[in-house]
Order: sequence, then C-alpha cells, then structure tokens
Amino acid sequence: MLKLFYNAGSIALASHIALEETGVNYEGIRLNSAILEHTLPEYLAINPKGRVPSLVTEHGILTETPAILLYIAQRFGSDVFPPPADIFDLAQLQSFNSYLCSTAHVNHAHRMRGKRWVDESDSHAIKAMQAKVTRNMQECFALIEAEMFKGPWVMGEDYSIADIYLFSITQWMEGDSVDINDFPVMKAHRAAMLARPAVKYIVDKHAA
Amino acid sequence: MLKLFYNAGSIALASHIALEETGVNYEGIRLNSAILEHTLPEYLAINPKGRVPSLVTEHGILTETPAILLYIAQRFGSDVFPPPADIFDLAQLQSFNSYLCSTAHVNHAHRMRGKRWVDESDSHAIKAMQAKVTRNMQECFALIEAEMFKGPWVMGEDYSIADIYLFSITQWMEGDSVDINDFPVMKAHRAAMLARPAVKYIVDKHAA
Repeated sequence: MLKLFYNAGSIALASHIALEETGVNYEGIRLNSAILEHTLPEYLAINPKGRVPSLVTEHGILTETPAILLYIAQRFGSDVFPPPADIFDLAQLQSFNSYLCSTAHVNHAHRMRGKRWVDESDSHAIKAMQAKVTRNMQECFALIEAEMFKGPWVMGEDYSIADIYLFSITQWMEGDSVDINDFPVMKAHRAAMLARPAVKYIVDKHAA
Repeated sequence: MLKLFYNAGSIALASHIALEETGVNYEGIRLNSAILEHTLPEYLAINPKGRVPSLVTEHGILTETPAILLYIAQRFGSDVFPPPADIFDLAQLQSFNSYLCSTAHVNHAHRMRGKRWVDESDSHAIKAMQAKVTRNMQECFALIEAEMFKGPWVMGEDYSIADIYLFSITQWMEGDSVDINDFPVMKAHRAAMLARPAVKYIVDKHAA
C-alpha cells in the first residue's frame, strides 16, 4: 500500500489531499514534529533530504511536491483530476506548480526556515528575512490572480493538482500576515476547495 | 517559429541547450542585461515575472525551467531525450528537476539576488546570505552525488533533460566558490556534457 509521510502545517498537505481525492488506498504517516522526526536516521533512510512529503510506492520512493502530484494525477487521478493530454497544457500545469515550489513556497520559508540561508545565530539576518515575507507573499498572490489563475479553477474549467497545490500554499496566508480579503480570487478559491469533502477531511486531520 | 528569451549566465541555458539538442527550428533572443531588459515593459508583456527563460510557442508562452524542459522533451525530444513512458520514471525525473529549481537554484540565488528576500539596503543581511552559499551548494552537490545521480547519466542509462538542467546548475560552481574537484561525479558529468556538440555550442554562445 502507498505510504505518505507528512508533517502538519507543511506542504505535504497537497500530496495528502491529492491522494484522498482519488480514493486510492494509502496510509498517511504523521511524523512527530516535537522530536523533529523528519531529521532522525530512520526517516532519513526514506528521504535523505529530511523533508516532507515522501510517498512510498511499490516502485520506489518519490519526493518533491510537483513530482508527487503529477504521479498521483497520472496514476490514480483519471476520475477527479486527469492530467492534461495536450503537451502544452501539461507544461502549463507544471509551470504553475514550478512557480509555487521555487518562488511562493521559498518566499514563505524565509519566515520560519531562514537558517537554511544564513547562520542560525545571526538574529539580525533572520529577522530581516522575516520582515519581507508578507510583501513577497502578497506579490505572489497578486501575480497569480492577475496573470496565472484562469478561473473557475487554476487551469480553467478543469479541477487539477494545481488547485490542490495552490490551496495548500494559501493555508499559510494567515501565518504570513497576508489578508485574504485583499485577494478575492484566492478567497473564492479557498471556499470552493473547502467545500470538497476530501479537502476538508485532510485539512481537519492536519489541524487535529 | 519558437522563440527563447534568455540572459547569459542564467538558468535559461538549460532550455537553450535542450532546444539545440533536438534540432528543432527556434530563435534565441538574448536580452540586454546591461539595461535590465528583463524588467522592461516590453518583456514583462511576455513574462510578467520578469525572469528568464520564456519560451514563445504557437500555443502560448511557457515559463519555469522544469516545465519548459518537459515540453521540449515531449514535443521535440523523441530522438535525443524521450521523456520516460513509465509514470514512476517520469515522476522521478520531475522530482530531480524540482529539487534543482526549488533548492539548488534558490541556494545559488542568495549570492547575487539576496534582495529578493531582505531589504536591498540591509548590507549585513545581504552578506550573511552570501556567506552561506558555498556551503549550501556543496550540500546540494553532495546529496546529488550520494543519493540521486544514478550514472552514467542522472537518471541512469538514458540521457535526459535532467542532465541538461544539472549541467546548467554546475556552471555556477566556480562563481559559488565550490571546488569541482570535491565532486568527482559532477566533474565527470560536466566533461561528458561538454563533449556534446549542442552543449558546447550553446555554452560558447552564452559566454560570448
């Protein structure tokens, strides 16, 4: 059976929702963040990057959200979010998801994970990074609303893994001090997502 | 005809090499970095992110390296780097490329693009970021060598877009003060890549 390793509050939410949406059999395994379980040897044997999510399949282990989402869509998603058959459309989907992983997620990470990029003891630099997170995230959501989001779903008429990924990033808005009322498209999208039973179920599970 | 917008020294190198490898007809358009052409209105109309690369196709414009590379492989790559037919193999390829865009490239960017994440005038924070770039890039290459690179190419027996992307990141080793002699797998890979005429041709074009 598929196993998904996740931490609450992390981007593993996206892969978790995607699995749940498909109805495939899987086991969700929540790591104990109080003991930083994702950094312990047993987990590093699964994912040497020490990050979540990791998806254990019968063919091997997958990491990185855009890749896991594509795998779930191609293998199990035909009824709920079939990957685009057209080469350009698929590339557009991957482009959106690449933007989320390389820009939006990275901007967010500078609030709590600044020590990845500066010495952990440098409190001035850590705070300097934190100070810019709200503005950077606002810029991301403004760009998504103005230029990328086609409506009613991210890629247009069809619900896709991009919706799940975007929703998971917007989960961080409040913590990043971004007022969702400044982003009406994101607000409506979040409401549409939370109306989906699989989304609500996994969000509640992570919050528990 | 396809048009690729690029800056010398940027990650657009990867998309440029990939196009050249396929033999497809395309036009490479080098932006004038002296006038920050990628930030001017004419280019922002093509790519509102103000980044390179952008690939203009007859179906629309694509941005983000992992997406552009997948598009080139699926549409034009059958003779040189066909995308894996197997769903898991394709996900592994996208996982590798996601790691490069969200971790390796981002680590590198903290050397010259620190102002993305802190106030530009904060020279202490800018320097604090620069100080960690070498170590972070060393960690990336060490992880790639130990855990990801299958050999003789990134994904194993078959040359792929992951090789082109990795090569483009290793172009930054010297500037990031990473000694290639500490990474024998990367060194051999770079030599194998530079022995490919299309790679050498585009590298020389960017250096000119």
